[in-house]
Amino acid sequence: MSEELTTGPKESPRAPRAAPREVWKKGGRLLSVLLAVNVLLLASTLISGGAFNKVAVYDTDVFALLTAMMLAAGLWILFYLFRTVRCPDAVPYRDAHAGPIWLRGGLVLFGICTLVMDVFKTGYYSSFFECQSAIKILHPLIQAVFVIVQTYFLWVSAKDCIHVHLDLTRCGLMFTLTTNLAIWMAAVVDESVHQTHSYSISHSNTSYTRLAPDVERASSPVPGDPCPCNTAICQIFQQGYFYLYPFNIEYSLFASTMLYVMWKNVGRLLGSPHSHGHARSQISLFRETYFAGPVLGLMLLVVGLAVFIIYEVQVSGEGGSMQQALVTYYIFNIVCLGLMTLVSLSGSIIYRFDRRAMDHHKNPTRTLDVALLMGAALGQYAISYYSIVAVVVGTPRDLLAGLNLAHALLMIAQHTFQNVFIIESLHRGPPGDEPHESPPKEPCQGLTFANLDALHTLPACPPTPRLVGTSPAGPQEAVTVILAPRGHWRRRCLKDISLFLLLCNVILWIMPAFGARPHFSNTVEVDFYGYSLWAAIVNICLPFGIFYRMHAVSSLLETYVLS
Amino acid sequence: MSEELTTGPKESPRAPRAAPREVWKKGGRLLSVLLAVNVLLLASTLISGGAFNKVAVYDTDVFALLTAMMLAAGLWILFYLFRTVRCPDAVPYRDAHAGPIWLRGGLVLFGICTLVMDVFKTGYYSSFFECQSAIKILHPLIQAVFVIVQTYFLWVSAKDCIHVHLDLTRCGLMFTLTTNLAIWMAAVVDESVHQTHSYSISHSNTSYTRLAPDVERASSPVPGDPCPCNTAICQIFQQGYFYLYPFNIEYSLFASTMLYVMWKNVGRLLGSPHSHGHARSQISLFRETYFAGPVLGLMLLVVGLAVFIIYEVQVSGEGGSMQQALVTYYIFNIVCLGLMTLVSLSGSIIYRFDRRAMDHHKNPTRTLDVALLMGAALGQYAISYYSIVAVVVGTPRDLLAGLNLAHALLMIAQHTFQNVFIIESLHRGPPGDEPHESPPKEPCQGLTFANLDALHTLPACPPTPRLVGTSPAGPQEAVTVILAPRGHWRRRCLKDISLFLLLCNVILWIMPAFGARPHFSNTVEVDFYGYSLWAAIVNICLPFGIFYRMHAVSSLLETYVLS
Repeated sequence: MSEELTTGPKESPRAPRAAPREVWKKGGRLLSVLLAVNVLLLASTLISGGAFNKVAVYDTDVFALLTAMMLAAGLWILFYLFRTVRCPDAVPYRDAHAGPIWLRGGLVLFGICTLVMDVFKTGYYSSFFECQSAIKILHPLIQAVFVIVQTYFLWVSAKDCIHVHLDLTRCGLMFTLTTNLAIWMAAVVDESVHQTHSYSISHSNTSYTRLAPDVERASSPVPGDPCPCNTAICQIFQQGYFYLYPFNIEYSLFASTMLYVMWKNVGRLLGSPHSHGHARSQISLFRETYFAGPVLGLMLLVVGLAVFIIYEVQVSGEGGSMQQALVTYYIFNIVCLGLMTLVSLSGSIIYRFDRRAMDHHKNPTRTLDVALLMGAALGQYAISYYSIVAVVVGTPRDLLAGLNLAHALLMIAQHTFQNVFIIESLHRGPPGDEPHESPPKEPCQGLTFANLDALHTLPACPPTPRLVGTSPAGPQEAVTVILAPRGHWRRRCLKDISLFLLLCNVILWIMPAFGARPHFSNTVEVDFYGYSLWAAIVNICLPFGIFYRMHAVSSLLETYVLS
Repeated sequence: MSEELTTGPKESPRAPRAAPREVWKKGGRLLSVLLAVNVLLLASTLISGGAFNKVAVYDTDVFALLTAMMLAAGLWILFYLFRTVRCPDAVPYRDAHAGPIWLRGGLVLFGICTLVMDVFKTGYYSSFFECQSAIKILHPLIQAVFVIVQTYFLWVSAKDCIHVHLDLTRCGLMFTLTTNLAIWMAAVVDESVHQTHSYSISHSNTSYTRLAPDVERASSPVPGDPCPCNTAICQIFQQGYFYLYPFNIEYSLFASTMLYVMWKNVGRLLGSPHSHGHARSQISLFRETYFAGPVLGLMLLVVGLAVFIIYEVQVSGEGGSMQQALVTYYIFNIVCLGLMTLVSLSGSIIYRFDRRAMDHHKNPTRTLDVALLMGAALGQYAISYYSIVAVVVGTPRDLLAGLNLAHALLMIAQHTFQNVFIIESLHRGPPGDEPHESPPKEPCQGLTFANLDALHTLPACPPTPRLVGTSPAGPQEAVTVILAPRGHWRRRCLKDISLFLLLCNVILWIMPAFGARPHFSNTVEVDFYGYSLWAAIVNICLPFGIFYRMHAVSSLLETYVLS
């Protein structure tokens, strides 16, 4: 319907401030969101149904659905690429904020790991080809093709603001986004089922078999099973693909966020091709810091890796070493979270003395970043609150319960203060070019955070709003002059803080992503809520917590570059 | 922090287009959202923990938390009322869209029902005063006071755009909102637990005891129970308060939406005190319709009530009549949903020929309405998709399975098309005053939906965007003249459609809200997913479905008035 209305930009791509061609943008968005919601609900119904043993939904149904979705999304991507190559006028603007290099780099990295996982999966299922349905081997192959096509597509098109076939493009992007979310859900469910099986077997057999993969098949072979995975190569494939799941999960989430930003940018009109874009600062790692942040962060990272390995080794031993492993794990986490909380807090305090203007420009990428940080933090919040209730209401009053309580409280504080720090950072303009790009009135507003006396030294920056508007070009130079002498130590501190928090988030991501589950080794919550309820809470919330760490890392990298 | 900065408006309340006084509005909002998220998570942890029998969280803990929250929120409300009465300059603007009369009327109505429920609850718990903790009697009393204070507060202050103590007001509003959501959660959980107990008892005893309330106490009295509810008055109190739960649930949700809009309006600057506000149309019920809509709708309402009563009577009988009751229930619902789908679709088609401009003004109330409609529909979508998977994958191929499948498919179609119709309606300006209020260019844009030939008869309405801007005052009169002769039948049709959909939504609200649960009477899904999984799905999703109906009714009333 609106496609006839939107062929206009081809004739006049140089009129960037014209009225929007779309009569009603929300209508077009509504259509694509409805499509996405329905496809996603169908997929999640099948996936969640397949996760329960008693339900007659087989995993082949889920595989078939996912394969069909990936094929359809891949075909649409090829169509999109073909069309934009043939008609370059279709993309009159590019959003400078969308698809930053670290996001696209991360996407490629996780994409490669996903390809390795697909190779392992294909190898594993090929080991007993005769008793598997063909879809189980077809699925990883199609997935590999889809990952390659999608990664290329996002690499070249992440910044596009497309202006032809608006409705079709919106639906296509939403469908691809839905496909990625469905793959993410399937991976999360698969991992949780695997985890639960391991736990139940480890508690019935007393020997801890978390490292023995695909429990139904290998660890408890049915005597008459016609398809055993007994060969060494089959076992390696099995172990490998379970350890590569976290990368596949992150790949899907990265792709989803980039697709969402592309969807928001469909039909968007930007002032000029490069306005509002922060000048690309050079990433000169460690050069403008006091070294304290990165050094302390790297120390914590190394210690954390050692603690993680000790924990993994001890937790698979007997009961006595389990207790010791948990104490080590909790003490490390408490120290790490405490330091992060203090550092985030001091970063926010530094911003109180910062004179840079707040960036009020519309920016879908940043809005999404903030929403994802706040939303993903809910997962860890929920786990922490359940832990707190279990420890406070429950009876045990020993060392582990105390450590658990401190850990949960610090986790909440750390997420809160880190989010405040990151969100405030993302809303600041970069230090150098901001006085030249921002509208005239903004530096005066930004200064209200600083000492108000300084304002009166600026000739044209009025203390009351009534005088705003006189000689707008004057104050900018004055602000730049005032900022120059003291801005440097503040900037260095902020860079130190960003790097320290970044490295801490990396180690706090590694631990849960690669299988540390103190939630179950610790008996407080399991005894209080019962295993099935507590497993449901952790398995639903922890993926969000893991995603939060990943996303915080990318946001902190942006903070480091911008400050 | 920002309170010093925001005392400015007192001196100059007549400068409505000045720059915003707040340096960074998102910062203030972030603070209050963080508070709300943490309080809400703590409350939901306790409430969900208390719902499980095996967990050592007692309902007195939940009651104590809710009572404390209501006391704190009530005190804040009194502080707010006292402050705005003493200092009228604190509210320089009022949002004409916020708190429309039907929302406030509904709030008062549901508030009164909640008060009756509180009386019943107090009476019930007083019947065995000696073996209850005091908090169980205190809780309904405090709730009654809170409901009275909050209803008065929302009645007088729903439209306020307050400009003093911004951070404190945001936190207060968010805390009150959180209190309402916690009450809502507690009520939903309480009702679900009650429903599940009834089901398990009815399936162990074969006699259906859903109508016998508070199952643990009355229907299966423990022989040595020191606190029996045996007196007639106690039983009446018990039955009464379980039937009044739906009203309490709706009251909390109504209050939450109004509080959210107030929160969005804190510190908001409006162009002029009454700009963008639709002129208040007189609700002249049925006068401007063809009578077909209301008559057909009323017929369906009456038939639906009869079907509901027959269903409730038959379902409590033996197995044979249960089957018959389900068939009746499904056939009525399929007819009703089919008609609603067709009518919504025809409404959307009528809008394709409508020449009214789209209203692009910023409007937090409408944005929230749209988000709630889309979000609440997810509940019913999820139930329908689970039903579809159960019927398609499962084995039974009888009449009931077919009816169930048709019902689920039509439910999805009806929600989709009704949402599209309502959202499109809410984005149209009212018919009469729109050409005078909207900016000059909008009628030309709006006309692209109508036949494009007519455009060329307007002297100053250019067919291509490049010519926009010449003599903006000319086209408006022309549009009004052209619209006059044919606009009337379209308007009447839209009013008929709105009223018909409204009445249908009322009957589809009554059935689940007052206890019809074909989801459990029908054995397809229970057998497929197992009782506990299916109960979890229905108990989580159905409250959203019920809220959707309520909210659709209020949106359709607005559509009726505006069209």
